[in-house]
Amino acid sequence: MQELLDRERTALAPLAKEGKTASYIPALQKANPRAFGACVIETDGTCAKSGDYRERFTIQSISKVLSFICCLLDTPAKQVFEKISVESSPAAFNAIADLETHETKKPLNPMINAGAIACMDFVAGDTAEEKFERVQALTRTLAKNPAIGHNEEVFRSERQSGDRNRSLAYYMKSTGIITGEVDTLLDAYFRVCALEMTCEDLAQIGAVLAGDGKSASGEEFVPAPIVKTARTVMALCGMYNESGRYAIQVGVPSKSGVGGGILAVVPNKMGIGIFAPALNEYGSSVCGIALMGALSRQLGLSVF
Amino acid sequence: MQELLDRERTALAPLAKEGKTASYIPALQKANPRAFGACVIETDGTCAKSGDYRERFTIQSISKVLSFICCLLDTPAKQVFEKISVESSPAAFNAIADLETHETKKPLNPMINAGAIACMDFVAGDTAEEKFERVQALTRTLAKNPAIGHNEEVFRSERQSGDRNRSLAYYMKSTGIITGEVDTLLDAYFRVCALEMTCEDLAQIGAVLAGDGKSASGEEFVPAPIVKTARTVMALCGMYNESGRYAIQVGVPSKSGVGGGILAVVPNKMGIGIFAPALNEYGSSVCGIALMGALSRQLGLSVF
Amino acid sequence: MQELLDRERTALAPLAKEGKTASYIPALQKANPRAFGACVIETDGTCAKSGDYRERFTIQSISKVLSFICCLLDTPAKQVFEKISVESSPAAFNAIADLETHETKKPLNPMINAGAIACMDFVAGDTAEEKFERVQALTRTLAKNPAIGHNEEVFRSERQSGDRNRSLAYYMKSTGIITGEVDTLLDAYFRVCALEMTCEDLAQIGAVLAGDGKSASGEEFVPAPIVKTARTVMALCGMYNESGRYAIQVGVPSKSGVGGGILAVVPNKMGIGIFAPALNEYGSSVCGIALMGALSRQLGLSVF
Amino acid sequence: MQELLDRERTALAPLAKEGKTASYIPALQKANPRAFGACVIETDGTCAKSGDYRERFTIQSISKVLSFICCLLDTPAKQVFEKISVESSPAAFNAIADLETHETKKPLNPMINAGAIACMDFVAGDTAEEKFERVQALTRTLAKNPAIGHNEEVFRSERQSGDRNRSLAYYMKSTGIITGEVDTLLDAYFRVCALEMTCEDLAQIGAVLAGDGKSASGEEFVPAPIVKTARTVMALCGMYNESGRYAIQVGVPSKSGVGGGILAVVPNKMGIGIFAPALNEYGSSVCGIALMGALSRQLGLSVF
Repeated sequence: MQELLDRERTALAPLAKEGKTASYIPALQKANPRAFGACVIETDGTCAKSGDYRERFTIQSISKVLSFICCLLDTPAKQVFEKISVESSPAAFNAIADLETHETKKPLNPMINAGAIACMDFVAGDTAEEKFERVQALTRTLAKNPAIGHNEEVFRSERQSGDRNRSLAYYMKSTGIITGEVDTLLDAYFRVCALEMTCEDLAQIGAVLAGDGKSASGEEFVPAPIVKTARTVMALCGMYNESGRYAIQVGVPSKSGVGGGILAVVPNKMGIGIFAPALNEYGSSVCGIALMGALSRQLGLSVF
Repeated sequence: MQELLDRERTALAPLAKEGKTASYIPALQKANPRAFGACVIETDGTCAKSGDYRERFTIQSISKVLSFICCLLDTPAKQVFEKISVESSPAAFNAIADLETHETKKPLNPMINAGAIACMDFVAGDTAEEKFERVQALTRTLAKNPAIGHNEEVFRSERQSGDRNRSLAYYMKSTGIITGEVDTLLDAYFRVCALEMTCEDLAQIGAVLAGDGKSASGEEFVPAPIVKTARTVMALCGMYNESGRYAIQVGVPSKSGVGGGILAVVPNKMGIGIFAPALNEYGSSVCGIALMGALSRQLGLSVF
Repeated sequence: MQELLDRERTALAPLAKEGKTASYIPALQKANPRAFGACVIETDGTCAKSGDYRERFTIQSISKVLSFICCLLDTPAKQVFEKISVESSPAAFNAIADLETHETKKPLNPMINAGAIACMDFVAGDTAEEKFERVQALTRTLAKNPAIGHNEEVFRSERQSGDRNRSLAYYMKSTGIITGEVDTLLDAYFRVCALEMTCEDLAQIGAVLAGDGKSASGEEFVPAPIVKTARTVMALCGMYNESGRYAIQVGVPSKSGVGGGILAVVPNKMGIGIFAPALNEYGSSVCGIALMGALSRQLGLSVF
Repeated sequence: MQELLDRERTALAPLAKEGKTASYIPALQKANPRAFGACVIETDGTCAKSGDYRERFTIQSISKVLSFICCLLDTPAKQVFEKISVESSPAAFNAIADLETHETKKPLNPMINAGAIACMDFVAGDTAEEKFERVQALTRTLAKNPAIGHNEEVFRSERQSGDRNRSLAYYMKSTGIITGEVDTLLDAYFRVCALEMTCEDLAQIGAVLAGDGKSASGEEFVPAPIVKTARTVMALCGMYNESGRYAIQVGVPSKSGVGGGILAVVPNKMGIGIFAPALNEYGSSVCGIALMGALSRQLGLSVF
C-alpha cells in the first residue's frame, strides 16, 4: 500500500496545475497549490502516508459529515428527516432556489450548505460554542487527536463573507425548517468548517467510519446504523455537483472540502485522507479525485 | 362624483365577506374586516369621500411607491436600474428563486419585496432612521399632512417576523445588488411599511402623482419624469400576481398593501385612496379592487 | 407629422449597425439590415410614411396580437382566461420551465409562444387551414388590404425548425391546456407568423385598434372591450423581456416581431407601423424602438 | 433463502392495501393490486421464488437500465456522457424544467424519462423497430428467455398518452441533445417500456448484472465496466424521487417501474426480481420496497 500510494501520488502531482486554490477568503487562497499529501489507514490500524501529510488545513465541507453524525447521535432520525431530505441536488452547493421550488421546502440533503446548517439545529447544545464543541469533541475522538481545534482567522473570514449562508438560514427560519437562532447556528456552522487537521487525522476518522463506527481495537464510537447512513449520504451527495460522475469513476463514499481535503471511506476496509488544495471547477481537489480514481481502480474499491 | 362614490361603496361593501384580513402579524389581523372607506381627489383639488375615510391604517406595500420615488430623487436612474429591473414577476411577491434563476440576479422590479429593499439602498441617509425620515418627509409633503407617522407596534411585529425579507436582503448582499448594511436597510424598509394614514391621505398623494408631480396649486414636488416612471411601474406590477388581470379590468396605475389600502393614480385626472382590509388571495383589498373596477368602467379611467 | 417622421427616421437610421437580423431561419437572415420604413396613420385617417414603407416582411410575433383578438372574438373571454393567463413573464419568450413551475400550469400570457399556440386552440376552425384563414381574414379587414397573404418559404422554414414550439405544444397538450391536435395548432401558428405585409399595413391595423376597433369612417370591426384587452396585454407584455423598460421609455401598447416589425397603438390617437430588421438582444427592432422613443417623447404619447 | 423469502413475502403482503396500481393507462390500472411475487437468483445460479412469480407484467422504467446498457455497448461512453449527465434529480421523473434551468441542458441522468429517450438515440439501429429489437435481444440474452416480447396493447396506450414524453423529446431535439427523429426514438422508447416478463426473468437479468456481466457458467454478456456503471446509476437514481431514502434503507442498486416491478442487483451476490403492482406515491411497488428492506437488513446487503 505504501508503495502504491507513493507511486500514484508522485505520478499525479503534476495535475495540480489544472486546479486553483479557493479564492473567496484570503486564508484559503494563500495555500500552496502544489501541496499534496495522502494517508490510508486500514480498519486493522495499518497505516500508509505520503507527501505533505503533516500539513494542516481547514476541513470546510468535510465537517458536514461530522455535523450530520452528531445530529443523528443527538436527535432521533425520524425528527431529523422531517426537516432534512436525503435526495441529491443537481444544483450548486449553495443554491437557494431549490429550497423554494421543491414541494417540501426541505434542504435536499445534509451535504449541501442549507442541509448542514439545518443539521446544526439538531446538534446538542444551546449556544454556538456548545454546538461547536460537541462536533469538535466527536472529531477529536474519531481522529484520536485531542489537539484538533479550529482556525480562528478562517472562521472570522468565513463569517464575514457568509451572506449567502445567512440568506439560506433566514429562509429556512421563515419556513420553519430551523427553529434555533440563525446567528447561533451560523456561528457553529462557520466554526466547524474551520476545524483544522492533517490528512492523517482524516484517514483516522475514515478508518473508524469504515469499521462501522468501531476503532481498530474494537471500541464503538458511533453506532453502526448511523455510520451506514452517513456513508450512504456521502456516496450519493458528497462530491458537490459531480457526485454522480465520481460514483461511477471512484465509487467510494467521500466528502470533499474547498480547503483541499477529501475524506473517503471504503466500508470494512479503510479510511483515506487527502490534502491537495488545487481545486477543480466543482470545488474538489484535482489531485485528490485523481488519486481516489487510481486507488479505486487498482484496489477494486468501488462499492457499486 | 360624491354620489357615484357613495352609491358604489354601499353596493360593493358586502363583498368584504369574501376576503380576510392579513394574518401574519396580530396588529393587521385585528383590523375590522367590514371597514370600507374611499376618497377621490381630482387634480384641481375637488374632493369626494365616503365611508370610513377617517380610519388610519398602515400602508405596507404601498410604501414601495414612495420609496421608489425617493430612490429616483436621490440617485441617478441609470445607477438604480443597474441594480433593479422593471420587468414584471409572475412569482409570489416574496419569491427568492427569481433572484437566483434570472440571469441578471437583479430583483425583478421595485414593487416586490426584494426590489423595495434594494431601493432603500439608494434612498438618501446613512442610518435606518435617516432613510425612514427621508421617505416619511416626502410622504408628508405629498399628502399635505405633517402629522403622518409610523405605527411602532406594527413596525416591531414586522421586524420580528421578517425572516423571509432578511433572507432576500442577505442574498442580495451576497450578490452585490445591495452594498449597505442589511439591518439598516431592513429597519428602514419595515418602518416605511408601517407608515400610517387615512385613505384621504392616499388620495392626496395620488392627486399629486396624477398631476405629474404638481399640487393643485401648481407647486412641483416631484419632477414629471420620475412620476411617470413610478406610474408605469405601478401599472405593470402594482397589484402583486394579478397585475395583468387588474390592468385589463381596471387599467389604472395602482398599488395595494396588505393593510387593506389601495393607492390609484389616473394620469391628469385624479388620485384615489381606498381602505378596506378584507383581502383576496393575492393580498389586495377585495372591496378596493371591486370599487376601482366600478369607477374605471363608469368613468372610463383605463389608460389602455 | 410627416416632417417629424422623416427627420427622426433619418437621424436614427445609423443605429441599425448596433443590431442583427434574425438568424434562426435563412429567409429572415437575408433581410437587408439597413432597411427602415415607418408609417403613422391617425384615427381620422391622416397618414404619414417614410423610408422603406413599401418593403414587405413577415410579421412573426406581431401575429400574436391578431390571433389573440380572433381568439377573443371566437370564444368567451372566461373560457380563454381559464387556460391562458395575462401576467407578464420575466423569462425568455420560449421558456418551458414557466409552464411547469407556476402553479396554474397556464401559459403566462398570449404574447409568448406558449400562450399564442394556446390561443390558436380557441380560434374558429377545425383545420390548420381554417384557423389560419380566420386570422388572415381579420388581418386583411383591419389592414384594408385583401392582398395580404403568407410567405410559404418562411412558413416552411419555421415549421422545420420549430421543435421548441412542438415541445411547448405537447407539454400543454399533456396538461390539458390545449385540446386540439398539436400539428393543427402549430401549423396554423407557424402560418400566421409568416403573414407578410408592409409597415403601412401594420399602421392601418394599429389605427383601427387605436380607434377602439372602428375604422376612420366609423365602421366597427372589433368590439371595443376586446380591443382594450388586446392593447392592455400589448402594453404589459408586447416587447418580450424588455416590456417593462419599454413601458417606461415609450409607454405605448406595442408588439414587435423578429421579422423586424413593430405594431404600436396609441389609444384614440394613431396606429404606427415600423419595419427595420436589425434586432437587439431581445429580438426587437433597434431602430424601431428608438423611433418609438423619439415619437413618444416629442408627441407625449405615453399612456402612463 | 427460500424460507426467508416465503416468510417475508407473506408477512409483507398486507402492505399492498397502502398502494394503488398505476392509473394513467387502462392496461396498468386493471392489474391485481394484491399480486406479489419475488425471485432471488444468486450468482452461482441458486434460485428461490415465492408467490406470483409466474405473473407477467410490463417492466416500464426498468427498461431504462437495459436501454442504458445497450447505449453504452453501442456508443463510446465519452460520447454518451457528452449528452447525458449522471447526476441525481430531486425533481419528478418527467420534469422538463430541469432540462431548461440547468446550465448544461443535458438530461440529468439515464434513469429519468428525458435521459432514457436520449439513450435511445445511442442504441444501435436506424428505425424504431431495429432499436427496440436491439434492446429486446439483450434482454432475452440476460434473462435467458427468448420468449420475452412486448405487450402491444400497453405500447399503444403509452404512445397514445405520451404527450409529456413527446414534449421532452422535442425539447431535446431543439437543443441538440438528440439528433435522431423524435418519432423513431419515442416509438422505441414506448416499446421497450412495454417489454413483458416475470419477476423470475428480472432476477435472472439481475444475477448477470450482479456477476459483473457474466452468467453463472462464466459466459460474458456485458463487459464489467459497463455493468458497474449501470449499477452505480441504479444505486444513485433508480428509485425516482426517493432514491436517497431507499439508498439509506436498502442500499442495493435497484430500478423500479410503474408496472409494479423492481430489479435489484447485489454486486457479486444475487439478482432479485419483484412484482407487486400496488405503488406508493413515487411510483414504486410498496411491497417491493418493503421486501427489499427486509432482505437487506437480514442478509446485510447494503453496499454502503
